[in-house]
Amino acid sequence: MTTRRNFLSGAGAITGAVAAAAVTRPAMAALPELVTQTTPDTRGPLVPPNGQPYNPVVTLNGWTLPWRMNSGVKEFHLVAEPVVREMAPGFKARLWGYNGQSPGPTIEVVEGDRVRIFVTNRLPEHTTIHWHGQRLPNGMDGVAGLTQKAIEPGKTFVYEFVARRPGTFMYHPHADEMTQMAMGMMGLWITHPKQAHPLIEPVNRDFAFLLNAYDIDPGSSTPKIMTMLDFNLWTFNSRIFPGIDSLNVRKGDKVRIRVGNLTMTNHPIHLHGHEFMVTGTDGGPVPRSARWPEVTTDVAVGQMRQLEFIADEEGDWALHCHKSHHTMNAMGHDVPTMIGVDHRDVVRKITNVIPDYMAMGDRGMADMAAMQMPLPDNTVPMMTGSGPFGPLGMGGMFTTLKVRSGQKPGDYSDPGWFKQPAGTQAYEYTGGALQAPRAPASASPAAGPAPGVEVQIRKPSGHDGHH
Amino acid sequence: MTTRRNFLSGAGAITGAVAAAAVTRPAMAALPELVTQTTPDTRGPLVPPNGQPYNPVVTLNGWTLPWRMNSGVKEFHLVAEPVVREMAPGFKARLWGYNGQSPGPTIEVVEGDRVRIFVTNRLPEHTTIHWHGQRLPNGMDGVAGLTQKAIEPGKTFVYEFVARRPGTFMYHPHADEMTQMAMGMMGLWITHPKQAHPLIEPVNRDFAFLLNAYDIDPGSSTPKIMTMLDFNLWTFNSRIFPGIDSLNVRKGDKVRIRVGNLTMTNHPIHLHGHEFMVTGTDGGPVPRSARWPEVTTDVAVGQMRQLEFIADEEGDWALHCHKSHHTMNAMGHDVPTMIGVDHRDVVRKITNVIPDYMAMGDRGMADMAAMQMPLPDNTVPMMTGSGPFGPLGMGGMFTTLKVRSGQKPGDYSDPGWFKQPAGTQAYEYTGGALQAPRAPASASPAAGPAPGVEVQIRKPSGHDGHH
Amino acid sequence: MTTRRNFLSGAGAITGAVAAAAVTRPAMAALPELVTQTTPDTRGPLVPPNGQPYNPVVTLNGWTLPWRMNSGVKEFHLVAEPVVREMAPGFKARLWGYNGQSPGPTIEVVEGDRVRIFVTNRLPEHTTIHWHGQRLPNGMDGVAGLTQKAIEPGKTFVYEFVARRPGTFMYHPHADEMTQMAMGMMGLWITHPKQAHPLIEPVNRDFAFLLNAYDIDPGSSTPKIMTMLDFNLWTFNSRIFPGIDSLNVRKGDKVRIRVGNLTMTNHPIHLHGHEFMVTGTDGGPVPRSARWPEVTTDVAVGQMRQLEFIADEEGDWALHCHKSHHTMNAMGHDVPTMIGVDHRDVVRKITNVIPDYMAMGDRGMADMAAMQMPLPDNTVPMMTGSGPFGPLGMGGMFTTLKVRSGQKPGDYSDPGWFKQPAGTQAYEYTGGALQAPRAPASASPAAGPAPGVEVQIRKPSGHDGHH
Repeated sequence: MTTRRNFLSGAGAITGAVAAAAVTRPAMAALPELVTQTTPDTRGPLVPPNGQPYNPVVTLNGWTLPWRMNSGVKEFHLVAEPVVREMAPGFKARLWGYNGQSPGPTIEVVEGDRVRIFVTNRLPEHTTIHWHGQRLPNGMDGVAGLTQKAIEPGKTFVYEFVARRPGTFMYHPHADEMTQMAMGMMGLWITHPKQAHPLIEPVNRDFAFLLNAYDIDPGSSTPKIMTMLDFNLWTFNSRIFPGIDSLNVRKGDKVRIRVGNLTMTNHPIHLHGHEFMVTGTDGGPVPRSARWPEVTTDVAVGQMRQLEFIADEEGDWALHCHKSHHTMNAMGHDVPTMIGVDHRDVVRKITNVIPDYMAMGDRGMADMAAMQMPLPDNTVPMMTGSGPFGPLGMGGMFTTLKVRSGQKPGDYSDPGWFKQPAGTQAYEYTGGALQAPRAPASASPAAGPAPGVEVQIRKPSGHDGHH
Repeated sequence: MTTRRNFLSGAGAITGAVAAAAVTRPAMAALPELVTQTTPDTRGPLVPPNGQPYNPVVTLNGWTLPWRMNSGVKEFHLVAEPVVREMAPGFKARLWGYNGQSPGPTIEVVEGDRVRIFVTNRLPEHTTIHWHGQRLPNGMDGVAGLTQKAIEPGKTFVYEFVARRPGTFMYHPHADEMTQMAMGMMGLWITHPKQAHPLIEPVNRDFAFLLNAYDIDPGSSTPKIMTMLDFNLWTFNSRIFPGIDSLNVRKGDKVRIRVGNLTMTNHPIHLHGHEFMVTGTDGGPVPRSARWPEVTTDVAVGQMRQLEFIADEEGDWALHCHKSHHTMNAMGHDVPTMIGVDHRDVVRKITNVIPDYMAMGDRGMADMAAMQMPLPDNTVPMMTGSGPFGPLGMGGMFTTLKVRSGQKPGDYSDPGWFKQPAGTQAYEYTGGALQAPRAPASASPAAGPAPGVEVQIRKPSGHDGHH
Repeated sequence: MTTRRNFLSGAGAITGAVAAAAVTRPAMAALPELVTQTTPDTRGPLVPPNGQPYNPVVTLNGWTLPWRMNSGVKEFHLVAEPVVREMAPGFKARLWGYNGQSPGPTIEVVEGDRVRIFVTNRLPEHTTIHWHGQRLPNGMDGVAGLTQKAIEPGKTFVYEFVARRPGTFMYHPHADEMTQMAMGMMGLWITHPKQAHPLIEPVNRDFAFLLNAYDIDPGSSTPKIMTMLDFNLWTFNSRIFPGIDSLNVRKGDKVRIRVGNLTMTNHPIHLHGHEFMVTGTDGGPVPRSARWPEVTTDVAVGQMRQLEFIADEEGDWALHCHKSHHTMNAMGHDVPTMIGVDHRDVVRKITNVIPDYMAMGDRGMADMAAMQMPLPDNTVPMMTGSGPFGPLGMGGMFTTLKVRSGQKPGDYSDPGWFKQPAGTQAYEYTGGALQAPRAPASASPAAGPAPGVEVQIRKPSGHDGHH
């Protein structure tokens, strides 16, 4: 069982500290307290203070919405509203979201829970919420015009249904959908299993995030909602690297990562150094016999994928979308190709300080990662992020999985950069003797499927029950 | 066994009434009668008048091509020709297709049938037909230049082969392919199993359609064939919502939906309120052990997917591509984003009636769904479609699955909008008492996979044999 | 076991003849000999001269890198450098690659091998190599900044690790990644199983290639590296049809095709006339219970897919990406649609020989395939490629699988076009008697899955051990 200790901000901190800072009590006292977030930090798991117990998830650069129990019904309060999302330090976007942030808070419930959600509309236009993937009465499905009237600005609507099957879901508007999703309106919904489920194995770490994309002109802060293809900001939970937290785990942990896609294209999510399996979708748990070993899984639009693996290799491992433009930030496009053209003479004559792209890129683009250029206000550089060995030249949908032997169970805090053991790192060859290969232990067989048996991921070792 | 009663137009009606209206007998009397369609209606299933029996499919806003038996060979006659397709009421496109419509008629045969297809070319350029996914002699594969000479305008070619394996296939040109598919030349081919097949279960309802995309400028009617990415019309069988019929089924029915993609991008097909499995591809039936539970399946280009599920939730359930721009019509693009900009003053001064997009969208785009704007001739509004609770704001690849307890077996007609039972619909909260939750029956467990057993979809209850 | 005879150029030829032609011995004598290629020919399989034995792959229009053994370690030498790649006869592109070509040479090793790769950087900017999909020490993972310092121009770095699990992998830079992959820097890595593996069956033919895409303006030769979506050259191993060799096999052969995608979009790879299964990914072998029968598999970016099937249908079968624009070459875009517009009068008056697209395409685009137009220098026509029955009108990601009864085991040479047997080819119908159907043998059941049993691909018949 995963720890209940809330290391980052304390379990109560979400209802306590957060509430203290950001809660506004609605005029209608009968509504559940409205809890909002104003910062993009990854909040520690919300240990359930009441109701059925479960092992909470950690939402990357996000948080879980507290609820209140009312005669056995879990009551949540979501407010659709304009928000400011810091996408990375120094770059804030004006989006639409829920309860102060985009994406909205994660909703976590337990299979069989009766759930009542109050939805208040503070947007300038009507909205609804569709509970993507859920079994529910047709009238609770949230399709404006088809299953209900739209929620007009200023109104509060009530949705109520039983969370009938465990799994990973999403919520998003089904009213002026193109606009409202392009503006950032979406959130995660986790229904934890009520009891041991043969296809849902316990894990030591459980992370969740959504894939989203925006088209915001450099120097601007509002997404262009009509963009269909040529987005320039590819984000995990409306954050871009290096503004995305790392996923920090203990060596040997069984890890689950829940990824949903609400962009306009497929995102092949690639993990370095480990193989994983997709163990569940928003349609339910994937039978063991049907699982594929992967290092890259293609998450299609409107899909949830649960990735599971044993984190048995120490180090800092990249986790990213494999489309190379999706790990770049806003200025990675529309720059003329100058490879092979030497215009240093021209450059010498130029004194204008407005970024002169014509003078860059004749030897590739790597220079730009290290370069300090004057940029328009409120704009992230094209490539950014530095590691222990220099600039990474990455942005967008990129983060790292940090695997450490010393990471305490339940400790989600960043352990810093990995110290590469001697003899295990690529090194410059200068003609002399080669470095000694690292100890034979390094040549141990992969943790991948053993020949001849059905592919399975090892059970977690349970070490996190020891603390 | 599915009913043989043809409720919409009568089984004979396709060869009878349709033929009477639209058939032209070709000069070459030895050819099978040429049957054409001039309207985009969903024709009832074509009950096979001869040959081996089978349970026919219903092609969404389409039809099945009649044949004649000639010494034990099923003979069909396809004519490639320019057609007019009504994409939605008020919007007609000049496409290329077969036998009067785009897509062409569905061809339904039985495993083991010897099939002879006469293909007449009435296009201004050469063509061929490739029988996508079929096992056949190389010379019947229809690749111009490689396996045969192209069929020149005015010529008729003969294809002949045995339908060797059951499944869902497509046909389309393999000559000037980019142009001819961009113009709408494609059709479905179903090979029904000859006898009980362990992986092909009988269903109560069997629907089929193709995904296609067009780029037609507002006010125009001919697709721009060079468009690779930025299409503006995303269609099911060359129809856009609200021009797409609903899929009407009885509660408890086992339903199969066969979807093929001949666009230029993936389409994640999403069903509300139910989980489904992909039970077959154009490569054959998917083993039960390999099936995934899904609510969204990503149909890649050149793929067929057979979705199956039990329709056990009453209501009107959306069925659509989950890419939000693909449920919008032609005017959803290239409109500047004005969110947050209040230009009502400006608008007041404007008297020009040509749609002034600059004056819209400052509060989102929902206004446009309800607005009556002057549009260019032959243009569908960006968003359209109204339901029982107001405008849906949807277009393109969108329709509904209508599940009713009272839908008679074999009755494919539209039952109208669902009457939401009391206590089952989202409602406005005005501070007073909450609505009574609906009866406990609503909290019954999901029809999804039971814990601990292999995932399976329940067998149809067989009720449609009772009528 | 597959033949060890090297039919095309001889096994030794790669280290012998090739080396003689193109090898330059580096100044640092301690480095393994640098072997380069200057032509885009498909080189015969490299039979391992030492180390553990394995059945080598054939890289389409590519080659395998020789190694040397050094105290039990397999040493390779890769040099990152600007290269000239002939994409098709008459069209050369200035790319970046490895050892003289793009993609770089295939690396083939055996499970358990200790591998040392010297990487020399002759590019004008820094680089690294990431060994995509491998289990290895974090410091060998090749992510610039994160796991190592970047390799500066002129420097040589050493990577060393044990190939721990069998499979199909890739290598590519993880430094200025967007630029360097857009320029063609990538290669294949095969780790053969050490011993019989229950999920890795022996095959008679084993092919491999990467999917890549470039945006090179007509008349130009350097890719535009900032292009995210609108590429105009869609390639197999940086070659476009008709510059792509055919895959030549014997009827009855078990065939494996390993395909990896390093473009910016999904590619649905479609094979005519046969069904296949994906038996492995870069994450490992796919359990038999999880395999789907397919005729089109969607290869996502950053994924490897191993397709396997029995080539039991004689003939020339198309193998291509099913996105129709991806089987066109550079001039398939941005041409106005003139269908239905007759401007022959205008054309008659025009004497200018610069291609006048305005005058084309009024009857479709097929004319252009046959037309001889003046083109800018170093430009491939939009559509090209001719077969035994005229122009195919195809380009880009397109080739053929040639299946012949008479193809000798181990003979990978092109058998020429298939001779269609009498009565097996589509033919013009002129009103007279129909052609006799071909012999009943043609109606034999498909080689697809037998009803009721788990889907399996037949074992190879072993005939290639006879020669």
